[in-house]
Amino acid sequence: MKERLFIEELLAAASDLVRGRYGARETVKVVSKSEPNDLLTEVDLAVQEYVVARIREAFPDDAIAAEEAGFAGTPADPDGRCWVIDPIDGTQNFVRSLFPAFGVSIAFAEGGVPIAGGVSMPIAHDVFVAERGGGTFRNGRRQQVTAIAEVGLARVEVDFAGREERKETLSRAGKVLTDAGQIRCHCATVVALCSIASGDAEAFVHVGLNPWDFAAGMIIAEEAGGRATRFDGGPVHLFDDGQGVVISNGHIHNELISLLQ
Amino acid sequence: MKERLFIEELLAAASDLVRGRYGARETVKVVSKSEPNDLLTEVDLAVQEYVVARIREAFPDDAIAAEEAGFAGTPADPDGRCWVIDPIDGTQNFVRSLFPAFGVSIAFAEGGVPIAGGVSMPIAHDVFVAERGGGTFRNGRRQQVTAIAEVGLARVEVDFAGREERKETLSRAGKVLTDAGQIRCHCATVVALCSIASGDAEAFVHVGLNPWDFAAGMIIAEEAGGRATRFDGGPVHLFDDGQGVVISNGHIHNELISLLQ
Repeated sequence: MKERLFIEELLAAASDLVRGRYGARETVKVVSKSEPNDLLTEVDLAVQEYVVARIREAFPDDAIAAEEAGFAGTPADPDGRCWVIDPIDGTQNFVRSLFPAFGVSIAFAEGGVPIAGGVSMPIAHDVFVAERGGGTFRNGRRQQVTAIAEVGLARVEVDFAGREERKETLSRAGKVLTDAGQIRCHCATVVALCSIASGDAEAFVHVGLNPWDFAAGMIIAEEAGGRATRFDGGPVHLFDDGQGVVISNGHIHNELISLLQ
Repeated sequence: MKERLFIEELLAAASDLVRGRYGARETVKVVSKSEPNDLLTEVDLAVQEYVVARIREAFPDDAIAAEEAGFAGTPADPDGRCWVIDPIDGTQNFVRSLFPAFGVSIAFAEGGVPIAGGVSMPIAHDVFVAERGGGTFRNGRRQQVTAIAEVGLARVEVDFAGREERKETLSRAGKVLTDAGQIRCHCATVVALCSIASGDAEAFVHVGLNPWDFAAGMIIAEEAGGRATRFDGGPVHLFDDGQGVVISNGHIHNELISLLQ
């Protein structure tokens, strides 16, 4: 479909932009958002401006929901055509981290669910793209979730997020934290969700996400055979104001939901 | 000193060995240890055999403590000259992970403290080496911990380890988990400790470590300006049978210790 092809084209250009600025990131101007660790970089804004401009040119009537600067609202018609963008998910890891655990996330949604989505991890030259009913591809190769069917054998990404959500994370995800075979926290939703699609992890739990954090990663995981719901097991509508999201390889989903109650 | 130079030479050769096997890791024979997620690979054993053979040739009278196969005990003289080896720290990440968050760890200890140590993350071609009183170097460049002086602004690596240690981790490190500015869990001690040295993280907390897990990383963090203690703030003797370890940039160490009581 044309939206998926357009996402691939946008990711390629945005990734070049990110790679060009990565080496100079120690001098990137970091502007603090609401709290000191919530970093907003010039690169973040530059990527969003580029992507928004290209979308407006190609699809002038579509809505846009994005992390930065004036786009962080719910579209007027929550079921209409909407582009959902996180220019850099994992900004903190962009600014500093031994491994480049961050990515550009672009999705196209309709009816409140992602129809196509793509994530690029520019420094690793790793690109995941998915289309509803068409499967998930990583650098051109079809991806498939693992067959692991027990939480006790699974690797689960639990995102501890900001301090304001920390106690809720520990209480809501407490049983997952004790029962999962392995716990990881890369603190980059795109990394966690692409890991599920590639078979490098089985699940991801987050108590407080915005649509742009997971729209692309959600369809990437789903089209590789995974499943995405709210904590109560109900379906995700990207603009339903719900916050908790659990995304898994499908096989451990019901067990995870019961641990989250 | 000759031990540090020898460590650098061993890391270079061991890294070549690891890189040569990394591409074929899907076919690496995985033998389970005591539990399913505790993976022991052929590569792990091959690296240890190589390093042990080279040390026995060069320093035939020295003791060796290492993770695998018969070397996992306390040396007869816990204060004597001893080589402390983890052939691959982060084996699970070697076997599967979007990012190659694992490394080879080799330290030389005397009097129960590391005197020289090195870590190589072979796929990233990233090598950290330190010598007591001589500083820490990453690929030849001197490293320095950050000046961050509050846990609330710090990035802390909390290792959730295996399921048997999970409840203890949540209870002992509970206040750190709620209070730290950011939480990460790469589940590779070498990654966490090198991150402190490079200024990419401020601290690392683990309730149950063996000497080979952190001997090299400990001196790498210390020689970059950091500090290492047990949970009670007391000094670390590698062979004192203590398990909890907290290693930080120094500036937040006392605050961390009080949160861990």
